[in-house]
Amino acid sequence: MINEHPGLERAREEEASNLTWHDMRVTKELRRNRNGHSSFVVWLTGLSGAGKSTIASALETRLFDMGLMTYVLDGDNVRMGLNANLGFSEEDRQENIRRVAEVSRLFVDAGIVTISSFISPLDADRVKARERFGEGEFIEVFIDCPVEECMKRDPKGLYQKAIAGEIKNFTGINAPYERPQDPEITLRTDQYTVDECVDTLVAYLKDRGLIFAR
Amino acid sequence: MINEHPGLERAREEEASNLTWHDMRVTKELRRNRNGHSSFVVWLTGLSGAGKSTIASALETRLFDMGLMTYVLDGDNVRMGLNANLGFSEEDRQENIRRVAEVSRLFVDAGIVTISSFISPLDADRVKARERFGEGEFIEVFIDCPVEECMKRDPKGLYQKAIAGEIKNFTGINAPYERPQDPEITLRTDQYTVDECVDTLVAYLKDRGLIFAR
Repeated sequence: MINEHPGLERAREEEASNLTWHDMRVTKELRRNRNGHSSFVVWLTGLSGAGKSTIASALETRLFDMGLMTYVLDGDNVRMGLNANLGFSEEDRQENIRRVAEVSRLFVDAGIVTISSFISPLDADRVKARERFGEGEFIEVFIDCPVEECMKRDPKGLYQKAIAGEIKNFTGINAPYERPQDPEITLRTDQYTVDECVDTLVAYLKDRGLIFAR
Repeated sequence: MINEHPGLERAREEEASNLTWHDMRVTKELRRNRNGHSSFVVWLTGLSGAGKSTIASALETRLFDMGLMTYVLDGDNVRMGLNANLGFSEEDRQENIRRVAEVSRLFVDAGIVTISSFISPLDADRVKARERFGEGEFIEVFIDCPVEECMKRDPKGLYQKAIAGEIKNFTGINAPYERPQDPEITLRTDQYTVDECVDTLVAYLKDRGLIFAR
C-alpha cells in the first residue's frame, strides 16, 4: 500500500501548510539496500591506449552479469554530450574532470556502481574528485602501461598525430601525466590480460564487502 | 559463467590485436530488460513554488515502492555540485538546463526512470532538451500554478525578495516563464492534491506501457 509510506502522509500535511520538504526522498541507503550492494565509483586513470575503456567495459560486463546495477562514464558518452562545449586546454580539461566527478557522485547517490574512465592526468584534479565522495566510495585505479607500449598500440592513431604535431596538449607527448600517488589499485596492462585485470578488481571489491556474487 | 559472454571473448581477441572496442558495453536495452521497465525522463517545468520538488519526491517514492529504478535530478543535487559554477544570467540558465538534459540522458541510458525538476522557463531550452532523447523518452510535465498562488506559498521567501528587488532574474517576477506549448501532461497544483497529481502521472506511465505495478 502506497499510503503506508510515512513520507507521503507528511507530504500531504506539509502541502496543506504550504511548506516545502525535500528530505523524504528515496535515499542512497534505501537504494543500496534494495539493490543488494554498495555504490561507489571505480575511477580509471591512465594514458591514452593504456586500456581504460577496455577494462571499463569488461569490468562492467562482469559486474552486470553478477546482477549489479552498473554504469560506465567515459569519453564516448560524456565528451559528445555533457562536455561537448569543452576543449582540451588545461582549464577545460580541469572542468571536464570536475563535471565527470560530479556526475559520478550523482550516479553513486543513485545506488549505481559507477565506472569512470578518463585520462585525468593531473593529481590535483583526481584529489578534488575524491573529495566529493564519502569514505571508501572513491576507488582510484591506475591503468599503468609504459608510454612506449601505448604508442605501439595507438588504437586511435592519436600518438602518431601528436608526434607529428597535429594534436596539441596530448597527454604523455606534449602534456603531462602525473602518476597517482596512492591509488587503491594499480593494473599493469602490459603484463596482465584484460580478464586478469578484471579478476583483480572484482577480488578487491569483494574483499571490502562492496559487492558479492549471487 | 562469465566467460560465456560473447563480448569478453572478443575483447581478448581484440586486445591481442591492439584494437579498441566499445560496442560490447552493457546496453540500455539490456538494463531495461533486467529492470523490468522502460527508462525515460519525466521533465517537470514550472514556476518556483508551483510544487515541482514536492511532486518529484512524491512521484519517486511511489515508483520506488513499485519496485522501479528511479532518480530525481533537481536544484538541490545539481546546483550545489555539477552546476555550482553557474549563476542565473540567461546564458548560465541555458547552460544549466543543457547540462541537466545531458545528465538526464545518461541516467535514461543507465535504465533509470529519471525525474528532472527544474524551472526551465524557456521553451527553446526545453525543446533542445527533448531533442536529446528518443521517441517517447521525454515526458514534459507542466506544473501549472498561478503566480499569485506561488507568491502566496512562497516556501523559500524568494518571491518576497524578488519583489523587494533583492533577486534579479527571478522567473515570474522579473524574468519570463514561457508556458509549454504542448506538454505531455499539465498538472494544476492549485486545484489537485499532491497525491492526485501523482495518480495522474502514474496512470499516464501505465497507459503507455512504460511501467507496471508489481
